[in-house]
This record gives sequence, structure tokens and C-alpha cells, in this order.
Amino acid sequence: MKIGILGGGQLGRMFIQEALKYDDEFYVLDPSSECSCAYISRFTQGDFNDYQTVIDFGKDKDVLTIEIEHINAQALEELEKQGVKVVPRPHIIKTIQQKILQKKFYQQNNIPSPDFQVIQGKSEVDFPLPFVQKLNTGGYDGKGVQVIKNTGDLEKMWDAPSVLEKLVDIDKELSVIIAKNEDGEIKTFPVTEMVADPKLNLLDFNICPAHISESVQNQIDEIVEKFVSAADSAGLFAIELFLDKEGKVWVNETAPRLHNSGHQSQEGNANSQFEQFYRVVANAPLADTDASGFSGMLNLVGEEGYSGKVRYDGIQKVLKFPKTYVHLYGKTDTKPGRKMGHINVLADSRAELMEKLIEIKEMVKVISE
Amino acid sequence: MKIGILGGGQLGRMFIQEALKYDDEFYVLDPSSECSCAYISRFTQGDFNDYQTVIDFGKDKDVLTIEIEHINAQALEELEKQGVKVVPRPHIIKTIQQKILQKKFYQQNNIPSPDFQVIQGKSEVDFPLPFVQKLNTGGYDGKGVQVIKNTGDLEKMWDAPSVLEKLVDIDKELSVIIAKNEDGEIKTFPVTEMVADPKLNLLDFNICPAHISESVQNQIDEIVEKFVSAADSAGLFAIELFLDKEGKVWVNETAPRLHNSGHQSQEGNANSQFEQFYRVVANAPLADTDASGFSGMLNLVGEEGYSGKVRYDGIQKVLKFPKTYVHLYGKTDTKPGRKMGHINVLADSRAELMEKLIEIKEMVKVISE
Repeated sequence: MKIGILGGGQLGRMFIQEALKYDDEFYVLDPSSECSCAYISRFTQGDFNDYQTVIDFGKDKDVLTIEIEHINAQALEELEKQGVKVVPRPHIIKTIQQKILQKKFYQQNNIPSPDFQVIQGKSEVDFPLPFVQKLNTGGYDGKGVQVIKNTGDLEKMWDAPSVLEKLVDIDKELSVIIAKNEDGEIKTFPVTEMVADPKLNLLDFNICPAHISESVQNQIDEIVEKFVSAADSAGLFAIELFLDKEGKVWVNETAPRLHNSGHQSQEGNANSQFEQFYRVVANAPLADTDASGFSGMLNLVGEEGYSGKVRYDGIQKVLKFPKTYVHLYGKTDTKPGRKMGHINVLADSRAELMEKLIEIKEMVKVISE
Repeated sequence: MKIGILGGGQLGRMFIQEALKYDDEFYVLDPSSECSCAYISRFTQGDFNDYQTVIDFGKDKDVLTIEIEHINAQALEELEKQGVKVVPRPHIIKTIQQKILQKKFYQQNNIPSPDFQVIQGKSEVDFPLPFVQKLNTGGYDGKGVQVIKNTGDLEKMWDAPSVLEKLVDIDKELSVIIAKNEDGEIKTFPVTEMVADPKLNLLDFNICPAHISESVQNQIDEIVEKFVSAADSAGLFAIELFLDKEGKVWVNETAPRLHNSGHQSQEGNANSQFEQFYRVVANAPLADTDASGFSGMLNLVGEEGYSGKVRYDGIQKVLKFPKTYVHLYGKTDTKPGRKMGHINVLADSRAELMEKLIEIKEMVKVISE
């Protein structure tokens, strides 16, 4: 099967890595000739936001998919019309691409999501402080999102189409990854949890399973059911959730693709999100997602103050740890805040897991040479 | 790191697949532009048996390795002299390449291996029947090996330099995979066992852990120790063993590379032989090789009577099995006996494992379109 992927970053790389178990041909479109997928696929250098580039790239593929949602969805719609299979379907990519449409989608489908106001520009603000401003388009990895706490902050607001959203009093950040194939089969991964270490204020541990009550699990199941039914598309989706201090679950946002919050599944679950995504793309029977024991992930992010050819300080020490798995993304250069890799850890208890994650986190630094 | 690999078959493919977790550049030399590694590496089409081709390919690499032993070892020796790191070292590849040298190596190092006679041609035969004739060079995947049972068979003997070897009265075929890095760290995988199903006479299940006595394990440990000490080289080695009906272990042969008998380690062990091989090549700390539960592998081999574009009949059914992992090698064409892929299975008991393996084996056929 000729599988075309828009985007050649780490999500595409780990997808191809997993799917090399099968006999398919992987074609990647990315603007950078040094992207993470360049040397492990049949690579085309080009802009996935350009209509004609996407049409040319996609027209002879058996199935087209994405590893980043900021692509030319109109071209995907046209290709779908021409009979190319596109997973997930362009209409849901379009909805998710635009924060305003995404919020309206939750509202229309009774999916709990924080109260909001849509604005076309700064002058329209009519929403109680504090709130979160999310730009309608272009947000990614925390970019395009800011908290407006008080009247003093109003000045720094972006003057562009946005969603203003009520600040949730967060107890926990959770995530759930769902897969649906064309045959309508649906499977959900165990819910994962973002954990902040109280001492170190590290915000990037993602652990599985989440420590949640039955009521919370039920709320999530209901959200998943509504989402899948409304999305009307095969695909793998990551729903990021807030659990508030009163025990209520809210949808923060959804990604129509593989997601950072599912990386621990590589060694923590019977099958990873990458394997599951392959099953979706190939319309194969979905894989079992069971977790045995506890697993967790920490992101390897470029340190402040370092730019240039990357060096992973301390990584040799980490490789000595049992049940610890280093995943680097094949990026030659680091810069502050750039996601360069992650480390997965397995453990028999949540306490052991946290201990190992903290120990490893303190051991590694992403710096430059 | 620039890692050069001689050979672009499935062993190289699965090695690169695993090692994509790290940031290295993989260069592959293989005569076929459609080999399993062609599209997942920086690929050079060329003959790894040609001296100058290997020199040209290898001279600018940080480390050179092999995924097939039938390569130009002389070129590797020259490159090693020029300061290129070669893993495993050329002297041990040379020894293993030639069955006569390999047998003498066992003899000199007191490694138990069946009695033998070396012949340069048919006329020199002076060995009790029945015996196995192994051609000195060119043997691979069972080729270049034949059993000579009686005087009638003498006629079909190959008239070429060979080893004649005493037939072992085999109780079990075992295999052990060893890794040693340049720092001298050594780790051994749990011993695996080839299992024949009594009803179906299927010879290609490889299961882990092997069901062996302490005495057998001790004999194997001793063999491993002697081998590693005598080989004097970093590398990953697979030692194929016979356990005879009197409980004695004999070395059948050794491969200086990744091996079919280690494939179940992909999901059956904490780390796979491919990950371990990466650690060897990179001279990183060796990975833990623990097995939890039982794992097994069945080869997907081209059926008799089918040649051409491959089709895996029944594979969709197999994908519905939990804890079952399909690995195809990216080969477009099948032919009788060609290794096209394998399936790994995990289970909680040996009985459950055998049941699953047999059920799956009956389900899949490698045929052509």
C-alpha cells in the first residue's frame, strides 16, 4: 500500500518505525529536507500548506494521512472527492484546525468544554476575567495560547480571531487516545495523566494508567462516545482533558493525530498508538491496548541557553537503567524548548515509576556541543 | 554516528527499525535496489563481496557492521587497519565464514562440537557413516549442508572443500544470543528452543525460554564463556546448539550477527536482539534481556508452488489475536522457501503458547497474487 503522510516530524518517524513491520511504502511531504522522516521514507520536499503541492503529492497514493494538523485541508477535501482515501477525513481536520469551529463542535454535540466567547478581534472582548485566549489558527505545542489574568493583561491580547475560554480550576490534566477504523471498530487506550512533581515543578511526565475515580472514567467514556459519533471519521484522535477540583471532566482540545501524551504506549501497552494508527490507516482490525503495570514518559526538551548541534548529556547513564527506553527524534540541532526526544519508563507501582522518572529527569540535559 | 551496514536484508531492516530510537545515520550496501533496507537508509547499491566496493563504502563511516557474514572480510580487515571501527572484528567473521576454520576454532578452544573430518574433495572421505557434509564456504539458511546417510548417498556428495561432521542424536535444538561491547560488558539472552509440533511436523517455532535442565544451562554458560573469550571481539553472536539424548550440549554453528532464532525477543524480552546489537555497535551499556512470560516465533516462508508478487493469506485474522505481532520484511516477491516475515506470540504458559502458535500457523499462507 502506498501511504502518504503530510508532515515529517517525530510523530511520522515513530509511525513509520512501527509500521515497518508491514510491507507498505511510506511517502512523506515536508518542507525540510532534514526532517525526522527524510531518510526513512520516499521523501518529497515541499510545503504541506500549499494546495497544489498537496494535490500533486497525494493524487497517486492509496491512502493519505497527517502527522500535523496545520496542513492544507482544502486540498485533502479535493483529493477525497477524487477518490483518494484520506484518514482522518478532511472535514474533521478542518474543524479541529480552527479553534472556533472546534469549540462550536463540542457545544453542538454536548461535549463538556469550558464556557467561551468567540471574538474576531480585541475590541469584541466581553468575557469575565481571568480567561485563556486561544488563537483561531496557528496554535501548536502551547503557542497561540495565553492566559489573561487581569485588566492589565488585556493589553497584550492578540488582535485576531480567537476563542476566549474560562479558566478551569485544574486538579489533573488527563488524555485519552481513541482509534476508529473504517469498519467502525473503536478502541480506546487507558487514560493517561500529566504529573507535576511537587518539588521540581516538572510538568512533563505523562503516566499510565491515570489515577482516577470511576465517576471520572465514566465521564471520559461518555465524552469519547460523543466525540467518535460526531466526528464521523476513521482516525486516531487524542482528547486532552481537564479534571476540575469538583470532579468534573472538561475537554481542553483534541488532536486528529498521534499525540505526545501517547508515547508511553510504545513499551507500556500491548500495542502502541503508532501500531494502532497503522491499523486505522490500513483499515485492519484494531490492536489490543492493554497496559500491564505502570508506564511513564518524560520529554527531552532543549535546555534554555543552548542552540546548535545537539548533545544529550547523561544519556549513557540512562541506558543503564532497566525497563527504560530512550527515543530520540533524529533532529541534529537543538534550541530552547524544542522537543528532541522522550524517555519511557516501566515500573510495578506508581511510586516506583515516579521515583525513576524524577531520577532520570535530573540525569539528562539536552544541550549543544 | 555514521553506521555502515553490509547487507540490506530483513536483519538490517529490523536493526534500523529498532535503532531509529537514536540519532544515528544508517548507510546500507546491498546489490539489490529493492532490498529490505533500500528506502529506510542512505542506500548504496553494490556488491558487498567486492573488495573495492566495500572499501569505498566503508572508509568514511564511524562504525561498520554486517547483517550477513558472506561479505568481503579482507576489505574489512584493511578498513580496520586504516582505523575504521568494524564490529564484529574481521578476524572472527573470517573464522566463521569458513566452516573448516570455524570447526578448528571450536576444537582449539575446547568448545564441544561434533567430531569431524576436513576434506578438500570427495576422494578424501574417511569418516564413519552417517555424517553431515558442510561446504566450507557459501552455506546459508540450510544451503550447503546435506546429510550423507549410507554408501548410496556418497555419490551425491559435493566435490569441494568441506567439513564432514558426526550426526548428533538430537533431543532438542537450542540457541543462545550473546552480546559483548567494546568495554568488555557481556550479556546473554535467555536460551531459546526450536519446537517441532508432533502432529504437524512444523519445524519453525522458536520459543523462549527453552525447557532445559540446570545441567544443560551450565553447559551452555560454559560454551558462551569460552566462545566470548576466544572470539576476542565486540559483537552480537548467535550460537546454535544441539542437545543430544544423553543430555550433552554441542555447538552446531555460530553466526557473527543478528539471528532468526532471536526474533521473538522483539516483544518477548525487555529489550530485543536488535536493541542489544545497537548497544554493541554504539559501544553503549548493554540492555537488559529479561523475558517475562513465554514468547514464540513462527517464520512466514513462501509456500511451495507460489512465485511472484506476495500475498499473505489469513493475515487479517491473525491481526485480531491479542499479544500477537506480525513482522513482514518488505519483500515484494515470494518464492518457495523464501523467508518473508515472522509472527511473534506472547503467552502466560508454554502450553498456551504452543496452542496459539499452532493455531496461527494453520491460519496463514504466504502465496502469490
